[in-house]
Amino acid sequence: MFFHRQELQHTVKPERPDAVYARKLQEVLGGQYGEITVAMQYGFQSWNAHMPGKYRDLLYGIGAEEMGHVEMLATMIAQLLEDAPLGVTEGAMQNDPTVAAIIGGTDPQQAIVSGAGARPVDSNGNPWNAGYVTASGNMLADFTANANAEMQGRVQVARLYHMTDDPGVRDLLSFLLARDTMHQNQWIAAAQELREEGVEDLPVPSTFPLGKEERAVSYQYINFSDGQAAAEGSWASGPTPDGKGEFEYVAEPPAGVPAPPPTNPDVRFHGT
Amino acid sequence: MFFHRQELQHTVKPERPDAVYARKLQEVLGGQYGEITVAMQYGFQSWNAHMPGKYRDLLYGIGAEEMGHVEMLATMIAQLLEDAPLGVTEGAMQNDPTVAAIIGGTDPQQAIVSGAGARPVDSNGNPWNAGYVTASGNMLADFTANANAEMQGRVQVARLYHMTDDPGVRDLLSFLLARDTMHQNQWIAAAQELREEGVEDLPVPSTFPLGKEERAVSYQYINFSDGQAAAEGSWASGPTPDGKGEFEYVAEPPAGVPAPPPTNPDVRFHGT
Amino acid sequence: MFFHRQELQHTVKPERPDAVYARKLQEVLGGQYGEITVAMQYGFQSWNAHMPGKYRDLLYGIGAEEMGHVEMLATMIAQLLEDAPLGVTEGAMQNDPTVAAIIGGTDPQQAIVSGAGARPVDSNGNPWNAGYVTASGNMLADFTANANAEMQGRVQVARLYHMTDDPGVRDLLSFLLARDTMHQNQWIAAAQELREEGVEDLPVPSTFPLGKEERAVSYQYINFSDGQAAAEGSWASGPTPDGKGEFEYVAEPPAGVPAPPPTNPDVRFHGT
Amino acid sequence: MFFHRQELQHTVKPERPDAVYARKLQEVLGGQYGEITVAMQYGFQSWNAHMPGKYRDLLYGIGAEEMGHVEMLATMIAQLLEDAPLGVTEGAMQNDPTVAAIIGGTDPQQAIVSGAGARPVDSNGNPWNAGYVTASGNMLADFTANANAEMQGRVQVARLYHMTDDPGVRDLLSFLLARDTMHQNQWIAAAQELREEGVEDLPVPSTFPLGKEERAVSYQYINFSDGQAAAEGSWASGPTPDGKGEFEYVAEPPAGVPAPPPTNPDVRFHGT
Amino acid sequence: MFFHRQELQHTVKPERPDAVYARKLQEVLGGQYGEITVAMQYGFQSWNAHMPGKYRDLLYGIGAEEMGHVEMLATMIAQLLEDAPLGVTEGAMQNDPTVAAIIGGTDPQQAIVSGAGARPVDSNGNPWNAGYVTASGNMLADFTANANAEMQGRVQVARLYHMTDDPGVRDLLSFLLARDTMHQNQWIAAAQELREEGVEDLPVPSTFPLGKEERAVSYQYINFSDGQAAAEGSWASGPTPDGKGEFEYVAEPPAGVPAPPPTNPDVRFHGT
Amino acid sequence: MFFHRQELQHTVKPERPDAVYARKLQEVLGGQYGEITVAMQYGFQSWNAHMPGKYRDLLYGIGAEEMGHVEMLATMIAQLLEDAPLGVTEGAMQNDPTVAAIIGGTDPQQAIVSGAGARPVDSNGNPWNAGYVTASGNMLADFTANANAEMQGRVQVARLYHMTDDPGVRDLLSFLLARDTMHQNQWIAAAQELREEGVEDLPVPSTFPLGKEERAVSYQYINFSDGQAAAEGSWASGPTPDGKGEFEYVAEPPAGVPAPPPTNPDVRFHGT
Ligand SMILES: [Ca+2]
Ligand SMILES: [Ca+2]
Ligand SMILES: [Ca+2]
Ligand SMILES: [Ca+2]
Ligand SMILES: [Ca+2]
Ligand SMILES: [Ca+2]
Repeated sequence: MFFHRQELQHTVKPERPDAVYARKLQEVLGGQYGEITVAMQYGFQSWNAHMPGKYRDLLYGIGAEEMGHVEMLATMIAQLLEDAPLGVTEGAMQNDPTVAAIIGGTDPQQAIVSGAGARPVDSNGNPWNAGYVTASGNMLADFTANANAEMQGRVQVARLYHMTDDPGVRDLLSFLLARDTMHQNQWIAAAQELREEGVEDLPVPSTFPLGKEERAVSYQYINFSDGQAAAEGSWASGPTPDGKGEFEYVAEPPAGVPAPPPTNPDVRFHGT
Repeated sequence: MFFHRQELQHTVKPERPDAVYARKLQEVLGGQYGEITVAMQYGFQSWNAHMPGKYRDLLYGIGAEEMGHVEMLATMIAQLLEDAPLGVTEGAMQNDPTVAAIIGGTDPQQAIVSGAGARPVDSNGNPWNAGYVTASGNMLADFTANANAEMQGRVQVARLYHMTDDPGVRDLLSFLLARDTMHQNQWIAAAQELREEGVEDLPVPSTFPLGKEERAVSYQYINFSDGQAAAEGSWASGPTPDGKGEFEYVAEPPAGVPAPPPTNPDVRFHGT
Repeated sequence: MFFHRQELQHTVKPERPDAVYARKLQEVLGGQYGEITVAMQYGFQSWNAHMPGKYRDLLYGIGAEEMGHVEMLATMIAQLLEDAPLGVTEGAMQNDPTVAAIIGGTDPQQAIVSGAGARPVDSNGNPWNAGYVTASGNMLADFTANANAEMQGRVQVARLYHMTDDPGVRDLLSFLLARDTMHQNQWIAAAQELREEGVEDLPVPSTFPLGKEERAVSYQYINFSDGQAAAEGSWASGPTPDGKGEFEYVAEPPAGVPAPPPTNPDVRFHGT
Repeated sequence: MFFHRQELQHTVKPERPDAVYARKLQEVLGGQYGEITVAMQYGFQSWNAHMPGKYRDLLYGIGAEEMGHVEMLATMIAQLLEDAPLGVTEGAMQNDPTVAAIIGGTDPQQAIVSGAGARPVDSNGNPWNAGYVTASGNMLADFTANANAEMQGRVQVARLYHMTDDPGVRDLLSFLLARDTMHQNQWIAAAQELREEGVEDLPVPSTFPLGKEERAVSYQYINFSDGQAAAEGSWASGPTPDGKGEFEYVAEPPAGVPAPPPTNPDVRFHGT
Repeated sequence: MFFHRQELQHTVKPERPDAVYARKLQEVLGGQYGEITVAMQYGFQSWNAHMPGKYRDLLYGIGAEEMGHVEMLATMIAQLLEDAPLGVTEGAMQNDPTVAAIIGGTDPQQAIVSGAGARPVDSNGNPWNAGYVTASGNMLADFTANANAEMQGRVQVARLYHMTDDPGVRDLLSFLLARDTMHQNQWIAAAQELREEGVEDLPVPSTFPLGKEERAVSYQYINFSDGQAAAEGSWASGPTPDGKGEFEYVAEPPAGVPAPPPTNPDVRFHGT
Repeated sequence: MFFHRQELQHTVKPERPDAVYARKLQEVLGGQYGEITVAMQYGFQSWNAHMPGKYRDLLYGIGAEEMGHVEMLATMIAQLLEDAPLGVTEGAMQNDPTVAAIIGGTDPQQAIVSGAGARPVDSNGNPWNAGYVTASGNMLADFTANANAEMQGRVQVARLYHMTDDPGVRDLLSFLLARDTMHQNQWIAAAQELREEGVEDLPVPSTFPLGKEERAVSYQYINFSDGQAAAEGSWASGPTPDGKGEFEYVAEPPAGVPAPPPTNPDVRFHGT
């Protein structure tokens, strides 16, 4: 069960309206790596979890925080739009380049559709969709997905930080950046703990019998391009992170096998 | 530039037709973590890379291999469909439960749209879309995304392995599983090397000045659920993976701040 | 059957080109509540209707009008684009802030893809999709959906009215506003008539036996937030609109029940 | 802020596994009118609200409940899948029509992608997307959208009730049906209260000056089909629900106006 | 303006219910090349046309017919579903393989969402979207798109013809096949006429000055694969269809040019 | 198998940064008719081909070239963004109309998401999706689709040519225009050769027995609009391109047939 309290985790108060920035901020609300994504992702991971205890509690404990981040960003966007020029004017403002420049960078749907409100979309107006969510039932894979999500999210918030000098907006971003710092660290720690406790291991899924994969190519770097610098990396020689092999560098792909003949399906498919 | 050779990296030859399985196999061809995703993802990461050398060569070197995996899976699917019942029959087959059962599990578009051919969609027929791709320009974030993609992909292939006993199909899957093993290991190694070489570090992006984030909450686990088991994890006390702090467990969220008053935009938005 | 006549229901003649506005107008052509939506929605409701007579005739009678509205908006957009700056210029116009400001607010696909023509997309360029359509086979539900669609549509047209002072554009909008006024009134009247004639009733679907729902919670407002003002509303006490109960205010959610233990599926799913 | 408690609002315990039904149940979790939709819809309406007090408290108070409904359905689906045949078998089960029949009706991604877990998708596997959400900033329009959403949702749950005889599943559905009954009634009451209090009125938005719309056609039913039965309805004569006019029946559309000549844009668009 | 008449262009009467086939038929109603696509495509092409007269009249004249095809298919689907098993049963039918086999092949949303009605989706339940529509403003390009659409559509209808033996369904399909025959022929004729009249020519757009393209590679077949059979085709030697050159076969791509160095954007993008 | 070489087919070097143009160029990279589309389309057509030899070699031979075009455009876009204003500034640049005008026309995700990199999206930020791909297994249909794709693509590149005066950008476009010229010619030649060799013929699919379609309407132009100019076209009289009939002009649609009565499905669907 979820409960709501009419408070925010952090102050949300821009110094001045900024409709162009309100559009940009949509990215970390409703984009691929926005707050809706992590809220839903941690939610589905918790509901599909197969073990009670600390890992599931971790998912529950953070998932609800992320819903609050959704709320904070929506609240910020609505305020940035409150007194901003959104194309609703007395006269033909599009002849004034200063105003027109602002209008040009705004999201028209924030004006026409939501009436100066936030929307569940990204900075280009693409509706959020659940194709962004990862919840496989395998926690080592999923916690790696989560670490990535917090990294991508923090990169985006950092970029957004440089796109405004509004102290109120920056104050909120500094809070979100810190929470992303925490969540990056925590998913990395949790992924490590899964391995140390033997819950899961590399290669994921470790429960699939290695004998059933074609081990001859399990640790070969096969180079399908013509640069050779990749041979210098730790992924080209030496022990592998899964502790089960040695990397090998193969400078050119070995000869392949002939492709099978083309298929010839039922004539009533009317192929050629 | 890309070049094509009319060979395959591995034999692609099912023992018998199986249209139900052909549908399932679409997942790792055109799904969220299918081969199209990794081919495009490594491609865009390489074209957007900011450093010449081993990291970019690594992206080039694997990206082209993944395009070949797309081709192998498409070839396998076309063969699985070649002589399979797809609803094209002389009579009213839908009264025969045996045949109907097979038809029921197939992808109707593999019959109607592609005429017994593979399609760039997942196992539910959702068209592949570029919302699956991650390419941020930050390699530590992106390599973590890549490690996740290879983990998710290997989990899916492992599941698919148990859904058939066709030795020809399993032979191809055993090859793909091994390549996923390699690619998991390699992205993990490369991410580690980025840190060791000081190219990037935690928290990502490390180039954002920590002093600008609200450090008081950078290492706090704030528990927004009522389970307490998460306190037992390594993410709740002790040093953080970024080496810059100590985890702290906060059993209940601190009091929030009042939300700002509702916005009151221009009357010509006709809000209420 | 549908027939076309080369006339328009109302004059469509802007006074001057305006590419920025042409983009905005796409919202009520190809957006969530644009004319394509209502044309398709009334169409599918009529084709799936289960009763001949006045309700189905109503759907038929308006559906075809809406297709004409699609045509009027497309015609208007093409004219707004006809002589507008769309980025096709002799020189490097992007150094001129006045022109650049205009360009910045336009839809690049109206230039590159349709060559100064209208497109079946919204004001952010999202293609129209059938996920906007509602046609459940239950007319009370669907007429409520229709009333909502005409309300949302009229709100959007009203906002667009304030974003231009072109008398030709406003003339068309004043016509569309009036038709939305009519259609709002009519769907509300039709929904009411369904109830008065006993075709359907609240709660929808009224044909589902109330005894099979958990009546103890059928009229309880259960407050999952911490504000108490909702207790003042007519939804918190007094008779319910369906005439079958009394509203009750429950200030805090009652204790829940324990969640079931986590699932433990087949090991071959390789979960953790 | 949102908080989570590890309890459910109602018992979630199916009597037996049923993977076919688990797929169907996805509709009311992640479909157009599923629980994710109402959770997000009430959330965005509350964050964009322009008035403090009872209406906003109502949105807050129910929004969080809907997040709990998301959780209950996800939990139910995971249990229905727990011991169900999902295509992971020792041998070639697809030759056995009984098992194949079951497999044919299941969602392959519930097996391959989530490993017997729930997903944020509908019963055809379409990812949930924010194009389903309505939040215009106009409460009379939005509450009508909400009433529709609860009607559509209750129709779908009622249909799903007849598609199973599992007493545990039906027990949960009987609870959800009752809550939908409540929420239908409440949004209808709240919409009525908005009008009675003069916050908003018909036609929505009532704040747009009627004098600016083309009043001559504001109450005309114009029949674009050839059935005449619609003339019998209350929408064809008599006073209009907005109290501002009289319906008029126009049996055939009046003659239109000539369409403007085709546009002739810049030659560099290379049109024909 | 569009007008509706309560008649159909052809009889629509299946002999018996068939829910599995009702799902398949959705493809040519709401799929990539279904009737909604051509109705919208011809509509937008006509509204964006730049010449009055025969070409635009042709688009108008067929566009409205296609809307009638949408209606016929929706009507057929509703009838196929009318008395079909859709999972709504007294008891636990999923244990009976005969019934389960049927259920397995049906579209659950035709039952749950539309209540045995047609939907604006394809045979996998993907909502129709306007990304399927082509309307560039260049008629030679667009008529080629139209010829393709009618070919793809006729291929799909032909395949569907072999998937049923219901004489009523086949009777409708035989009508649609004939209309597709007509429309294929007509777009090919119209494309030819555009060239003969000098309205447009190859290469499209012919109005772009050929001197501005790199003519040295305008007629070279450059072979990026290792098969050599393509050298045998009429596209490898001899005059080109545009009448402006001679095809040339280049067996291997010439050496490329070095890629530019990687980009090095502002440090505040926090790339690596 | 695919191989990559670290060269480009043509020089890719803009003279100066231009973020507005970088956004526009996304259209021909990741739009409906961008390079990703043709790369994937020719790929799936080759993998699903049913004949070895020249036609399949043609598909292979060009498909890989198109992947190289994807790379060239991505490389160009990254360079156009390298030193461009993207909203990352020291101060509040949005008050400077010159800069703001530029920003307003850029893609915010090229800054926030990819950090001044290219993305697999179109010029409005819509992610590329596989609904753009055509691969039916019927080569005459598919080659017509390919001819259309190259025409649409060349129209778009031609329009883009007029939107810049950067000689470096124009140099790349002049190369792409020439390749589009080639590919248009070649698909037209190949389609013609399919007919001449009797592999396939009009109407597509020619393998469907004409006797099974309703021949009475196979060559009738039935005019569903009220313009009469279409009677003047070659599609209204004379021999048909398939060589199997004579066009006939029908100035008004013949009377239709009565629609069947509305359906009346199971009461448990709770329709009205
Ligand atoms: Ca967050
Ligand atoms: Ca792979
Ligand atoms: Ca309308
Ligand atoms: Ca609910
Ligand atoms: Ca048709
Ligand atoms: Ca190309």
